[in-house]
Amino acid sequence: MIKCHTFIYSICIIVMMLSSCQRHHPMEAAGKELTAPKVQELTKEIMSEAEQLSLFDKVLAEVIAEVDEEISQGIEVPLPKDMAGGYTHERHKRNFFILEKAGNLYRITKENKYASYIKESLMAYADMYPTLPLHPTQKSYATGKIFWQCLNDANWLVYVSQAYGAILDTLSSSERNHLETQLFRPMADFLSIENPKFFNRIHNHSTWANAAVGMIGLVMNDKDLIDRALYGLPINENNTLTKDNDGGYIYQQGMAKAGFLAQLDGSFAPDGYFTEGPYYLRYAIFPFLKFSQALSRRMPELDIMNYRDGIMTKAIYALLNQTDANGQFFPINDAQKGMSWNARELVTAVDILYYEDPSNKTLLDIARRQAKVLLDETGLAVSKALEAGEAEPYRQTPMIYGDGEDGSEGGVGILRNGQTCLVMKYSAQGMGHGHFDKLSYSLYDDVGEVVQDYGAARWVNIDQKGGGRYLKENQSFAKQSIAHNTAVLNSTSHYVGMIEKGELHHPFLYFANYEDADRQIMSAKDTNAYEGVELHRTMILLTDESLPNPLTLDLFRVSGEVPAQVDLPLWFQGHVLATDFEYTKSLSELRPLGDSYGYQHVWQQASTAIDEDQNHTLTWFAQGKFYTTTFSASSGEELIIGMAGANDPSFNLRHDPVLIRRKPAVTDALFASVIESHGTYDPISEIPLNPYSDIKTLDVLQDDEVYTIIKLSTNEGISWIIGIANQSLDQSMNHALSLADQQLSWTGPYTITKL
Amino acid sequence: MIKCHTFIYSICIIVMMLSSCQRHHPMEAAGKELTAPKVQELTKEIMSEAEQLSLFDKVLAEVIAEVDEEISQGIEVPLPKDMAGGYTHERHKRNFFILEKAGNLYRITKENKYASYIKESLMAYADMYPTLPLHPTQKSYATGKIFWQCLNDANWLVYVSQAYGAILDTLSSSERNHLETQLFRPMADFLSIENPKFFNRIHNHSTWANAAVGMIGLVMNDKDLIDRALYGLPINENNTLTKDNDGGYIYQQGMAKAGFLAQLDGSFAPDGYFTEGPYYLRYAIFPFLKFSQALSRRMPELDIMNYRDGIMTKAIYALLNQTDANGQFFPINDAQKGMSWNARELVTAVDILYYEDPSNKTLLDIARRQAKVLLDETGLAVSKALEAGEAEPYRQTPMIYGDGEDGSEGGVGILRNGQTCLVMKYSAQGMGHGHFDKLSYSLYDDVGEVVQDYGAARWVNIDQKGGGRYLKENQSFAKQSIAHNTAVLNSTSHYVGMIEKGELHHPFLYFANYEDADRQIMSAKDTNAYEGVELHRTMILLTDESLPNPLTLDLFRVSGEVPAQVDLPLWFQGHVLATDFEYTKSLSELRPLGDSYGYQHVWQQASTAIDEDQNHTLTWFAQGKFYTTTFSASSGEELIIGMAGANDPSFNLRHDPVLIRRKPAVTDALFASVIESHGTYDPISEIPLNPYSDIKTLDVLQDDEVYTIIKLSTNEGISWIIGIANQSLDQSMNHALSLADQQLSWTGPYTITKL
Repeated sequence: MIKCHTFIYSICIIVMMLSSCQRHHPMEAAGKELTAPKVQELTKEIMSEAEQLSLFDKVLAEVIAEVDEEISQGIEVPLPKDMAGGYTHERHKRNFFILEKAGNLYRITKENKYASYIKESLMAYADMYPTLPLHPTQKSYATGKIFWQCLNDANWLVYVSQAYGAILDTLSSSERNHLETQLFRPMADFLSIENPKFFNRIHNHSTWANAAVGMIGLVMNDKDLIDRALYGLPINENNTLTKDNDGGYIYQQGMAKAGFLAQLDGSFAPDGYFTEGPYYLRYAIFPFLKFSQALSRRMPELDIMNYRDGIMTKAIYALLNQTDANGQFFPINDAQKGMSWNARELVTAVDILYYEDPSNKTLLDIARRQAKVLLDETGLAVSKALEAGEAEPYRQTPMIYGDGEDGSEGGVGILRNGQTCLVMKYSAQGMGHGHFDKLSYSLYDDVGEVVQDYGAARWVNIDQKGGGRYLKENQSFAKQSIAHNTAVLNSTSHYVGMIEKGELHHPFLYFANYEDADRQIMSAKDTNAYEGVELHRTMILLTDESLPNPLTLDLFRVSGEVPAQVDLPLWFQGHVLATDFEYTKSLSELRPLGDSYGYQHVWQQASTAIDEDQNHTLTWFAQGKFYTTTFSASSGEELIIGMAGANDPSFNLRHDPVLIRRKPAVTDALFASVIESHGTYDPISEIPLNPYSDIKTLDVLQDDEVYTIIKLSTNEGISWIIGIANQSLDQSMNHALSLADQQLSWTGPYTITKL
Repeated sequence: MIKCHTFIYSICIIVMMLSSCQRHHPMEAAGKELTAPKVQELTKEIMSEAEQLSLFDKVLAEVIAEVDEEISQGIEVPLPKDMAGGYTHERHKRNFFILEKAGNLYRITKENKYASYIKESLMAYADMYPTLPLHPTQKSYATGKIFWQCLNDANWLVYVSQAYGAILDTLSSSERNHLETQLFRPMADFLSIENPKFFNRIHNHSTWANAAVGMIGLVMNDKDLIDRALYGLPINENNTLTKDNDGGYIYQQGMAKAGFLAQLDGSFAPDGYFTEGPYYLRYAIFPFLKFSQALSRRMPELDIMNYRDGIMTKAIYALLNQTDANGQFFPINDAQKGMSWNARELVTAVDILYYEDPSNKTLLDIARRQAKVLLDETGLAVSKALEAGEAEPYRQTPMIYGDGEDGSEGGVGILRNGQTCLVMKYSAQGMGHGHFDKLSYSLYDDVGEVVQDYGAARWVNIDQKGGGRYLKENQSFAKQSIAHNTAVLNSTSHYVGMIEKGELHHPFLYFANYEDADRQIMSAKDTNAYEGVELHRTMILLTDESLPNPLTLDLFRVSGEVPAQVDLPLWFQGHVLATDFEYTKSLSELRPLGDSYGYQHVWQQASTAIDEDQNHTLTWFAQGKFYTTTFSASSGEELIIGMAGANDPSFNLRHDPVLIRRKPAVTDALFASVIESHGTYDPISEIPLNPYSDIKTLDVLQDDEVYTIIKLSTNEGISWIIGIANQSLDQSMNHALSLADQQLSWTGPYTITKL
């Protein structure tokens, strides 16, 4: 089988070289042997004509330059010592990236220097590994040997097994035997048998572990390792509900199986949603795909790409769609912002998925934006298809994703029109990386976040910030409900901020409809975040020719039996430009909003007490655009403008602003509001265009357990009535109401009526 | 003369149309008359082939679309009522922009609709103007009629006189007489004779006034108005030192002349520096140029472009050079950030200057980046030259600019290498828009501000923020010394924050040398900001192959006879990543740093007391880059990390961070520090590159009134010794010192020696 791979790569390189040569050197190429030095020569020449290069050629030239530079600096395999961001961590990490690339280059060029570099590097690791103790940091629930956690050791093995596979037939059997007995098998055993807590979970950590053990098993042709990877270790009946470093349970209650196939069964909802959210799916998808790619080649009888009705394909499309207009992932749960579909894991996903099924022509559009391909047969296929002009436009779509293994544990709803994108999260807890933000939302447009999800309090891989790990403010602030755009009762987070409770429950979709692009709606409920309280949020993305951009309408009902204080934060992104209400600003003293559940991290900047029922507005400015929220405020309500950053001893938090609407001691409350992007300002022309809101009034016509009816009117005199049947999903039920100055009737759970 | 202009434009349009036609319609054009409808037809067709269009064609198509849309909406000339940002203000402003554009279009296309639109608009203004009272707002030292200040009325007349000139020969003599007696002459008189305080200053306001009166005078062929514009009104001997709305003096002491030529004499230093700074030069340059352009045509005997040895050309080149790598102006004094060489005033400057002297080929490179040209003979010339490939690369340069009419009142020094740019400001006060920041500096790189000048507290033209005017925080914070990167003694601003004192003094350049691009240096002193105190700052931009980017070295000496507390703020742009010192952070209560001179606007976030002499570092992160400042701290010193935004009742200030080094009760103090940009981090790869400082030590080897000697060493073991002779500028003087472990000798005022 190995030889077969080599053959495939030889075909690739010949195809590729000919295609380059035909463009650049039609005469020279004919009848000449394509020796390795020739490749470099061509590459060099080609580089000067960069614009005419195929994507594959460009990446090849870049990677040759990168790996050659690294080879020239010599091999370094230091004794493990540091946390992420520290020298030994970053050095070993760089080693596995470079080894995998060198393996690709050897497959393509057959240049000895790449094979030698890999061999010598592996020998250096094999010299060190047998006597390597556990990593001295001992800060992980599963401490590694080369890195501080087994997870990074598994990363290493996933990458390095590919490099080893690339040079396998250049090694003598005694060399193979040395590497396999001193390095690879001990490492595979360490990551599995010796660390069942790490290997046998249903979790992205274990996906990496399974893939690592399985991929080296395939290269070594070791059925025992392959089976261990696919089916896991036997389940220990004495598993206890201990937690990992992120506060997630290591074993889920009633877990009956483990291993790679169990991950495919248990990690995704049927439509591909991943319970930890897109940032972690991006991370997890890589070992899923790389192991699957190897399985496709070596065990085609498994038909892994069609496993569970093609779950991996669905997961990748779901991942691509959980992005804003710039391709950045929605930063729900623990996510570092800025991660996008340009990540290397998505390059891998797009290339492998296209190669497995070249009818996915819209993937080529993503590949074009990524401007990167893998240096293997999949990347070559993508590059050639791009050159042949086969790309079809990729378009993000509105979508309702179910969460949980069978898609029944709530989910995430995405409404979008043009570049405006509204995301409501009513998913399950999302394990250790989940946040306590039932029914929270975030809003995006062409310039990025309009209403933000804070994401994680973490600087991934940046040593100076806690070794790149989650910071304590992640638990004390970023995970708490007040850090999100959702209702918080009695200044206490959902599920009292306890993952044990969160894992037991989930909200549910009430209804959704995005058939009419101009009147998209989603509605979800939760009855467990607070005992005896129903949270019910309906969000609408309303587009009308009279308005410059889609409007976001938000109707958040809170009903319980016991009076409670209800806060609804709006984490708008930008600078407060104006309000139509007077406020008292804290001029010479700032104090936090509270002392727990994240409130201790919010400075109170300004506040006001509302003494009559009427609409109010806050306008903010960000990135050259004006935004206004108009909301119905009630007498007795308090408005608070705050800023994150209190009780933050190490400058770990951003100083982001928030508007909190606070209703005191209520049993039933409706928070009705609308957000508009209405104008622009350019500091070069200095001309503000449409700096004022287009909304005139937002009236709550009725709100009770049966109906919520609001009326929205613009300055141009255009009005809409929105009606929600709060208790009936019956599509054929007729509703008829007498309102103050009109009759309203409709059929089904809601109406959006333009007057 | 008017006919002559028309003829020039006819030539232009024919040249232009032929050039378009030759590319797109070689057959059609031959022998056909170029009627106006034909132009539109062509334009429409051309628009679909946008990539092949010349810049002039593209702008023409855009402007036709814009003006036609405006014409279709009808003429609106509302009764003046609002401040900037309000409806009547923005409407009248839009009117003058559109009228000028319609004039250009009429000149090019000869389409009647443009002439009619202009005529009808002017008639509407002529109907309103005779009975128009002063603007009801009465908030300016010189209240206008159409706008709240005469300045905007003058803007209107500068633009509209061009539109009037364009259609002059389409009007009957009675129509002209009506417009001139009802509108133009009364307005010219109002802006001059009736408002001498506005017309007769040496100030950008008066430049607008002079140009407005002169330009309409040229169109009306009215020698009285032209002379009034060129030479001003008689100087009133009873002028008092009253101030304008910005706190600037209306008349300068001893002022002997006024008018446009006096502005040219008095507004610029000999090398083109403008005392208010680049943001205001950008604003002021427009009327200078437009009036000069008209004078060139109509009064060539004045040879205005060569007036004062070509001062306008020098001013424009000085303006283009006062920019960062992205073409944004240094926001010194009252400036709104984001303004750049893409501003319409700079498009005007570049086109006119190129037209007047086509040997200025590097201007074409700026025009290419602007992607805009004027719709007249100057823009056509630029467009054609661009198409002919005549552009030569424009490169910003290091430069020392003198301030003041004869260049002797201090100045601004710019050191740069690659995209790194270091600006020290030791200029005169800069009139009403000046800040109290003697010897302050700012630092820029490829991503923008590294160490910022706060700029103005103002949202230009944004109605919601105080009608777009300067906010009170501009006076109380943005102008104060603590808001800048310069020494502040006893928590009191330079000149006690009094413009009366500031206008009397200025710092001076001690020496500068940027001949060696890798060792650029500038040194300046001030002896008036604080009585009996000398401030002496030397800044170096040091580039070395061992370092990834140029280093900024800062040696700030403060010496006085009476002990004083000295603060040196560093307004770094970014998020605190790490410090090598422990600090006490204010966790649950923030208080301002002081109660006056801007200190009341800075929250104290963290502080620490230094108990031994040693270096310390602070690393920050911004826009994907790591920066570190390493500084020598002394026992007894306090370090404070603060944040702007205290005592800001209307959210007018940004929450920007600052590091303040505070030395208590000292007579002699040296603040030595270095700033490096040393690494990068991309949230997609999540790999930090070089996140730690490359600087190992920064030692002060000697510091007294005669010498300041420091030694800088990197982790790689490379060292430099920098020596400054604090009292001798003698280029041939030999200096020899015995330091702890070595002898140091050099010749001249400084040495930068690599060991």
